[in-house]
Amino acid sequence: MSRVAELIEGGMQHNKEEQLFLGIDGGGTKCKAIVMTSNNIIIGTGISGPGNPVYGIEQAMNSITESANLALKDAGLDNINLSDLIAGVGLAGVNLPTLFEEMSIWKNPFKKMHLTTDLLIACLGAHQGSDGAVIVTGTGSCGFSYVEEQAVILGAHGFPQGDKGSGAWFGLEVVKHVLLSLDGIIAPSSMNEEVLKYLKVSSSVELVEATAGQPATFYAQLANIVFTAANSGDDIALKLVNEGAKYISNVARLLLQTNPPRMSLIGGLTPILFPWLDKDIQDELSKPFAPPEVGAVFFAKQQCLVATAEQLI
Amino acid sequence: MSRVAELIEGGMQHNKEEQLFLGIDGGGTKCKAIVMTSNNIIIGTGISGPGNPVYGIEQAMNSITESANLALKDAGLDNINLSDLIAGVGLAGVNLPTLFEEMSIWKNPFKKMHLTTDLLIACLGAHQGSDGAVIVTGTGSCGFSYVEEQAVILGAHGFPQGDKGSGAWFGLEVVKHVLLSLDGIIAPSSMNEEVLKYLKVSSSVELVEATAGQPATFYAQLANIVFTAANSGDDIALKLVNEGAKYISNVARLLLQTNPPRMSLIGGLTPILFPWLDKDIQDELSKPFAPPEVGAVFFAKQQCLVATAEQLI
Repeated sequence: MSRVAELIEGGMQHNKEEQLFLGIDGGGTKCKAIVMTSNNIIIGTGISGPGNPVYGIEQAMNSITESANLALKDAGLDNINLSDLIAGVGLAGVNLPTLFEEMSIWKNPFKKMHLTTDLLIACLGAHQGSDGAVIVTGTGSCGFSYVEEQAVILGAHGFPQGDKGSGAWFGLEVVKHVLLSLDGIIAPSSMNEEVLKYLKVSSSVELVEATAGQPATFYAQLANIVFTAANSGDDIALKLVNEGAKYISNVARLLLQTNPPRMSLIGGLTPILFPWLDKDIQDELSKPFAPPEVGAVFFAKQQCLVATAEQLI
Repeated sequence: MSRVAELIEGGMQHNKEEQLFLGIDGGGTKCKAIVMTSNNIIIGTGISGPGNPVYGIEQAMNSITESANLALKDAGLDNINLSDLIAGVGLAGVNLPTLFEEMSIWKNPFKKMHLTTDLLIACLGAHQGSDGAVIVTGTGSCGFSYVEEQAVILGAHGFPQGDKGSGAWFGLEVVKHVLLSLDGIIAPSSMNEEVLKYLKVSSSVELVEATAGQPATFYAQLANIVFTAANSGDDIALKLVNEGAKYISNVARLLLQTNPPRMSLIGGLTPILFPWLDKDIQDELSKPFAPPEVGAVFFAKQQCLVATAEQLI
């Protein structure tokens, strides 16, 4: 009988002797949590709001705690608290030293918290804890390779100054085109009508009002319009999709120079962007094994092993 | 003896019978105020912080009041209060209906407030209260024409989705280039070193940290670097300057279709951008007569005349 089956049979009573792990993937739009047993069985999951400390340390901490509580509730373990869990926490933004520092000193509710970037946990998840590389294209974009304990980051520059080939980038580019064409500066494209319809506006002034001060997540919603138009042969859309895809292909090519045993494309844009990548890059890409929150658990376990090894020395 | 000379002779006592006017130009970085007599003599000026309600209604109101008080103090008129002044107030952002509405209902400290866009007051100032067109290139960019009571606005789309050819646009474009070249995706340019030096950073991570979440005004600081590099023949800088200048030339060309009697280029980028505009556009441009805050007084006076005429009907 498996441990999980035992748990279920036992009315979700958990043997306090067995260490449980929490994996957290804190991104710009949501925070995902997963509770796993020591032998990698998923027993609960939870999702809450933004977990990226770039947009607020307080909010990130709240989202992490909330998603963890939801995962614990989902697991149905009444006799286990957050303070019993060893947490692996991967957060967008903590590649910036100041944010890493601020999150590290958090008096967190867990037994132990191992903090790292969303990139490392994505990579560990995609390659089942082994070395490899990932290219992430969701709201933002970046490339990451982790080979022989050497990490290489490309992109992760943020919006609007970077994140080329991401959902936000495609959305911003199409809005720029629509605004210029409504002024009569450039020719309109088939995307004009789609963007206005999606945002429920009908004039340049209304579009300016709808887009004023909007964050990356707002623009990322519009990426689908660009890909749909490209697939229908719209020239402007084709130019944008090819430019974004070329950038992602070039990022992949640079990552390959680090000799990753495996490379995956992950993030929300994956299914629509993949067919536009250079063919040689498509051939290099493997499906990810597990999501980043599982990678966060792998990270926590590896850190525990390191700590144990250090104690033995 | 002129009215102003009389005022000075009389120890800055002002004849309460004579109506004084206040002109306000509220922009994204500062708010300028001017106090003028009914016969257009400037007797005081003041400058305060951001007056653009896009970045906060409360702050805009405070900046307007503060700059007006400074202008009144500068005029040295002890017996005059804000409540004695008829104000013409031109604000960036109030071309958006919701912001116009919000600012209109302000219980302002003036005898009367006439509210309009920063564009109209810039145009009225540049052409001494007469019809004309202006192209503004400062932190943001836009074109505006006012001919026979018909206003046409081009651009004014905001950052980062618009404002092409503005200081913020040049700054953002160069940061994008520097970030990509530090990753090895594209070749570096002579601007890399200048941008890193200006922002006092030395790596890609530090540059990401320095630019994360920065507003248009931050990027506008970097525009000079692009123009300096273009003048030294840097290929990337030349491409950017030509792209931005071509856009501004095209905006000017569309404005000319409204048959403005006069057209001016105004805003902080004017001296460095002018030489890069198309030659036919350079020939169409005339120096502005007066700054926007003076145009705001012209606007207030015109509105008073309209009100008087309506009373006579």
